[in-house]
Amino acid sequence: MQSKTLGIIGGLGPMATARFLELTVRMTEASRDQDHLEAILLESPSIPDRTAYILDRSNPSPLPPIVALAKKLESLGAGCLAIPCITSHYFYDEFSAAVSVPFLNILRETAAHLKENGVSSAGVLATTGTVQAGLFQRALAEQGIRCLTPDEEHQAMVMHVIYSNVKAGLPVERELLRQAASSLRGQGAQCLILGCTELSLAKEGCGLGAGCLDALDVLARAAVLACGKPLKPQYRRLISE
Amino acid sequence: MQSKTLGIIGGLGPMATARFLELTVRMTEASRDQDHLEAILLESPSIPDRTAYILDRSNPSPLPPIVALAKKLESLGAGCLAIPCITSHYFYDEFSAAVSVPFLNILRETAAHLKENGVSSAGVLATTGTVQAGLFQRALAEQGIRCLTPDEEHQAMVMHVIYSNVKAGLPVERELLRQAASSLRGQGAQCLILGCTELSLAKEGCGLGAGCLDALDVLARAAVLACGKPLKPQYRRLISE
Repeated sequence: MQSKTLGIIGGLGPMATARFLELTVRMTEASRDQDHLEAILLESPSIPDRTAYILDRSNPSPLPPIVALAKKLESLGAGCLAIPCITSHYFYDEFSAAVSVPFLNILRETAAHLKENGVSSAGVLATTGTVQAGLFQRALAEQGIRCLTPDEEHQAMVMHVIYSNVKAGLPVERELLRQAASSLRGQGAQCLILGCTELSLAKEGCGLGAGCLDALDVLARAAVLACGKPLKPQYRRLISE
Repeated sequence: MQSKTLGIIGGLGPMATARFLELTVRMTEASRDQDHLEAILLESPSIPDRTAYILDRSNPSPLPPIVALAKKLESLGAGCLAIPCITSHYFYDEFSAAVSVPFLNILRETAAHLKENGVSSAGVLATTGTVQAGLFQRALAEQGIRCLTPDEEHQAMVMHVIYSNVKAGLPVERELLRQAASSLRGQGAQCLILGCTELSLAKEGCGLGAGCLDALDVLARAAVLACGKPLKPQYRRLISE
């Protein structure tokens, strides 16, 4: 397979972008610098908040800057694009149509990975924007997978961890994430999707246990493969055991 | 101070670049995505090996691609450049002269931080390219700081950790790094400089103790400040206590 340069629209949020970059390096089968993938990252944290716009259209839209960055990455030679921000995938059809190179879709990649691994029901931990817009619900339904979401009280806990802990640079209130996870397990979720890239940073030490799938891992894996790099064998299956 | 976009020449190595990006985010005083710095990263791991060229000029030079990337970053609007690779600073005069925007110098920033904190002698853990080229020796001498380097046997241990552990994606042989550190302490080093960005990744769990300064931390801190962002107070002094 031909090598491609990965184009990354980053900064949504900035810590998740750094983690995404680290994951692509970690997952690539490489024994020296020169074996790794080439990438261009446009780190643009000033892009307006995604959930704020989805919940209230009077807020500024993040779509125009995302489209501009996608076009810029394409013009700079990126052969495959990724945006390590799940809520942004609300606009996937629009921003992917603005370029002629493939744009990875974290929702579809996640649903496909669940399907491949025989998961029939999954709970989603994500922003209220992602949940209310039904992003995972639709992607999972396309694969015939049942999708469960937290009730209002537990959804508020997840948002608190994302915005008031991770994005604010403060310690993670792990008990909140554990309670939200537990409520989804109680609803019958066979697998939990960490469906916001900030939660990839929050999950450490939360003891969420087996049967978790981090969507950021899925996107990093897809990026390595799409850019024509070999994957380390231990990253073939990403659901925690 | 006016905000600037940070331009990063990355991939030398790729894991150190991801860590550098993470450090800039971690060190910025920010409570939401939009408070963070804007950046453009050109991740180019295919750039020829730096130490290989410094030790044997018949190997391909990394300088032309570094200059090309610096110019590209400037043309894309970067207002300040950084290259999170210490050995590359062998070429600092050449690549910094190729652009008209400021180019951070990890060696001078490190020496200045040692000086500010009253350090009078420091030992260097770095690649053989960095050591043989006298990069830290010169930068520290400019500040009146005595610079100690490992003997041949311990230098070989440091290179093994950098190339055969970190760059190869394998576990760090911590005992080797500990022995090299201990030999520098034995020579009278008041402070140890982690003087290769790969060592920033290797240091965890090595128990190097107090009096260590990670040059990658110094570069990240300098980048945050140079881009006009506020620094979290705990990153004012970077030498471990």
